[in-house]
Amino acid sequence: MKTNSRMKSYYAVIFSSLRSVEDTPGYEETAARMLRLAEKQPGFLGFESVRDRHGAGISVSYWKNKKSIKYWKNQAEHSFAQKKGRTLWYKQYKIRIALVKDEYEYIKNDDLT
Amino acid sequence: MKTNSRMKSYYAVIFSSLRSVEDTPGYEETAARMLRLAEKQPGFLGFESVRDRHGAGISVSYWKNKKSIKYWKNQAEHSFAQKKGRTLWYKQYKIRIALVKDEYEYIKNDDLT
Repeated sequence: MKTNSRMKSYYAVIFSSLRSVEDTPGYEETAARMLRLAEKQPGFLGFESVRDRHGAGISVSYWKNKKSIKYWKNQAEHSFAQKKGRTLWYKQYKIRIALVKDEYEYIKNDDLT
Repeated sequence: MKTNSRMKSYYAVIFSSLRSVEDTPGYEETAARMLRLAEKQPGFLGFESVRDRHGAGISVSYWKNKKSIKYWKNQAEHSFAQKKGRTLWYKQYKIRIALVKDEYEYIKNDDLT
C-alpha cells in the first residue's frame, strides 16, 4: 500500500462523451489510431479512457502545457477525426481543459496485506 | 448541433480507479450514498462517472473551489468510505485536483440533421 501527494503542474483534457446509438463503422480503428498519433505529439504525458456498455465514456489525456494541447487539437489528421466524430460517432460530448495542481495515488500491495 | 466555448474557473477532481477483483459487498450502496451526500455539500457543481466491465473507472466531480473539495474530503462519513475503499473495493486509484480553465460542448440536434 502506498499513498503519496505531490504538487504538480500539467494539464488534463477531460473528454466526456455519449456515443451514437448506431454502431457506425470506423470508430474503434480511428480511436486507436488517434491514441498512437497523440503519443507522438510534443508534450503528451499520458492517457486514460473508460467506456461503459451504455455508450457513456470519459477519456482524460495529460499534457505538458496549453501549447501542446492546442497543437494536438489542430493536428491535421486529428482535426479530420474530430469532424467525423461529430458527424458519425458522438451524440454529445464535453471537453474541459484543466490545470492539474495536486495528485494522490493509492496502490494496493497484495504482498503486504 | 451546437458548439460553444466559455472561459471557466472551477475545479475538477479526477478519480481514476481499478476495482478489486473480488466482488466485495457494499460498494454500489456506498457509491450511491456518497453521491447523494456529495450533492448536498457546499460548492458541489456536478458529477460524471463511467466504469467498464473490466473494473476500470473514471469519475470526475466538479467543485466551486478548493475549500469545498477539502471540506468534502474530510467529511466524516466520506472519510470512513474512503478507508473502506482502500481496504475492500479498490486495487488502485489516482486522484488529481485540477482547475478547469476552458470548456467546449457539442450536442447533436437530431431535428436538424
